[in-house]
Amino acid sequence: MILTVTLNTALDLTYGVPELVPHASHRVGDMAERPGGKGLNVARVLSALGQATVVTGFAGGSTGAVLRELLAQLAPRDTTGTDTRAAAVTPATTTPLSTPAPAPITDALVTVAGNTRRTIAVVDRATGDTTQLNEPGPLVTADEWAALLDRYEELLTGADAVALCGSLPPGIHVGAYAELIRPARAAGIPVLLDTSGEPLRRGIAARPDLIKPNAEELAQLTGSREPLRATHDARRRGAHGVIASLGPDGMLAVTPDGVWRASPPARVLGNPTGAGDSAVAGLLSGLVEGLSWPDRLRRAVALSTATVLSPTAGDFDRAAYEELLPGVDVEEHTAAV
Amino acid sequence: MILTVTLNTALDLTYGVPELVPHASHRVGDMAERPGGKGLNVARVLSALGQATVVTGFAGGSTGAVLRELLAQLAPRDTTGTDTRAAAVTPATTTPLSTPAPAPITDALVTVAGNTRRTIAVVDRATGDTTQLNEPGPLVTADEWAALLDRYEELLTGADAVALCGSLPPGIHVGAYAELIRPARAAGIPVLLDTSGEPLRRGIAARPDLIKPNAEELAQLTGSREPLRATHDARRRGAHGVIASLGPDGMLAVTPDGVWRASPPARVLGNPTGAGDSAVAGLLSGLVEGLSWPDRLRRAVALSTATVLSPTAGDFDRAAYEELLPGVDVEEHTAAV
Repeated sequence: MILTVTLNTALDLTYGVPELVPHASHRVGDMAERPGGKGLNVARVLSALGQATVVTGFAGGSTGAVLRELLAQLAPRDTTGTDTRAAAVTPATTTPLSTPAPAPITDALVTVAGNTRRTIAVVDRATGDTTQLNEPGPLVTADEWAALLDRYEELLTGADAVALCGSLPPGIHVGAYAELIRPARAAGIPVLLDTSGEPLRRGIAARPDLIKPNAEELAQLTGSREPLRATHDARRRGAHGVIASLGPDGMLAVTPDGVWRASPPARVLGNPTGAGDSAVAGLLSGLVEGLSWPDRLRRAVALSTATVLSPTAGDFDRAAYEELLPGVDVEEHTAAV
Repeated sequence: MILTVTLNTALDLTYGVPELVPHASHRVGDMAERPGGKGLNVARVLSALGQATVVTGFAGGSTGAVLRELLAQLAPRDTTGTDTRAAAVTPATTTPLSTPAPAPITDALVTVAGNTRRTIAVVDRATGDTTQLNEPGPLVTADEWAALLDRYEELLTGADAVALCGSLPPGIHVGAYAELIRPARAAGIPVLLDTSGEPLRRGIAARPDLIKPNAEELAQLTGSREPLRATHDARRRGAHGVIASLGPDGMLAVTPDGVWRASPPARVLGNPTGAGDSAVAGLLSGLVEGLSWPDRLRRAVALSTATVLSPTAGDFDRAAYEELLPGVDVEEHTAAV
């Protein structure tokens, strides 16, 4: 199984409004509520890919209870429906493909006294533009952190790979990810770190197998906006492999085994929310299935592009994924940097 | 006791942000969560005035459960602290005054299957400007409405006055308030209706004792933006008494006993959220205490002004209230219209 860790889980609310106007009153036209935080999003995609997942991290209070109820209800989604945007990619070639049965997601969250945060995405329905409001997370105590460390070490014994995802809630020290990386590395379990800012900087020093920064996170870490230079710099800081996600330009992978650039077959329009989490799911599922680097990157790029195309933020469009997959271009870089 | 009815209760969230910027991501700096919906706000103010209150209406789902927990926890607030804005009104005369003990608020809400809505007030902390996002209410079934009617008729037997407050949730027919006004009128219990749009128009036809529209609601109802003309028109439509709240200009009361205009002693700056609910509490508490119309209006104007002055949206500043009360100017109109 793959273990995902989400220290700052969230109840994600999406509010559709005609247009968000500051200082006006809005009736929310449509709304959705789902368990969130990057590691939970990664688990949802892994489940859809047929990979059994265990999620840990913190949840508490009334919003934590709702989050866990929704997590327990996560059921296979019908992805055979037609989505007009996905269909526009390759309108004539849609054929039924075998779909793996969704794999279970096991709730191994640690209960905390504080209230799990909410995040609110206010989507202008006319344009798709999104305004984000993120509550602060609950204050996590030293005892709660110790309980998480115990739970994590138990779960590591059954894990084929680990993803450490997202921001840190108040009370958790900035070096927390380094503390989680070390026992995974000691046990020989591949560990991917997907965070930003100081937690990323401090986590890298503990030498994770992979990091997956976007261009902004990479620039913040290294001071460079030149992707190849910044990616090599991030490796020198301790990450064994760096997969830089470059939005519509695809991904740049600098790894001990080589350097690749992977690009989607076409530029697509849609909502990029969750595209990075889908990429993490693609990379880790490919890793545990023993795929080559080019095939892992192909999967990651196709999944994140199919996430942009999905009408529901954070879900991926399976038909689009299966159509995009063979068209992802992966090019090996041979020049030394 | 005073009975307040809130068919569309809400869990009110307030998010403080430096400035709301459409299509950007915001960390919420401070947040508050409290039971809301107009009738619950009225009950909170009545409690602070020492008036025992029973609240009914609908609550359901996880947000309904949180709302009821918070309602049960409603405790006396310490209002002896210094508020800079309130102090600015009469800085030199603050003296300790006797404060009535808060009276109980009894939860007689009817449980529904749907989820109670949330409302989110996003406050720009630099300017105090507020952007409002209101979820749709739960769909209320015919059986749930029948249960509310039964509960309401039971509660009427012990009520000295009734306030019917706010919007209608989906599933409730637009003539619902008329159905609630008739049995109160038949039992000789004074009933105040505080709503807007079609529910107000339809409710008025059942001849409530009082309505308390603001200028906008009054214009919507009557088509006139001239307050005295519109207020008289609203009476002709069926309301026995009309108290028009004119924001910083105070209130205009057109009643079977006379016509009065009540004005606060000074214009104040602050957040008008909840000022109308405080006015309702002032009018009803004055009514059950047997105060004269001028004294009821004095109380309503002082309470709503003290609500604008409160640092917490929807609370009133007690020291400011007690200072403002003797300064409210009430002038009787003798001219026929």
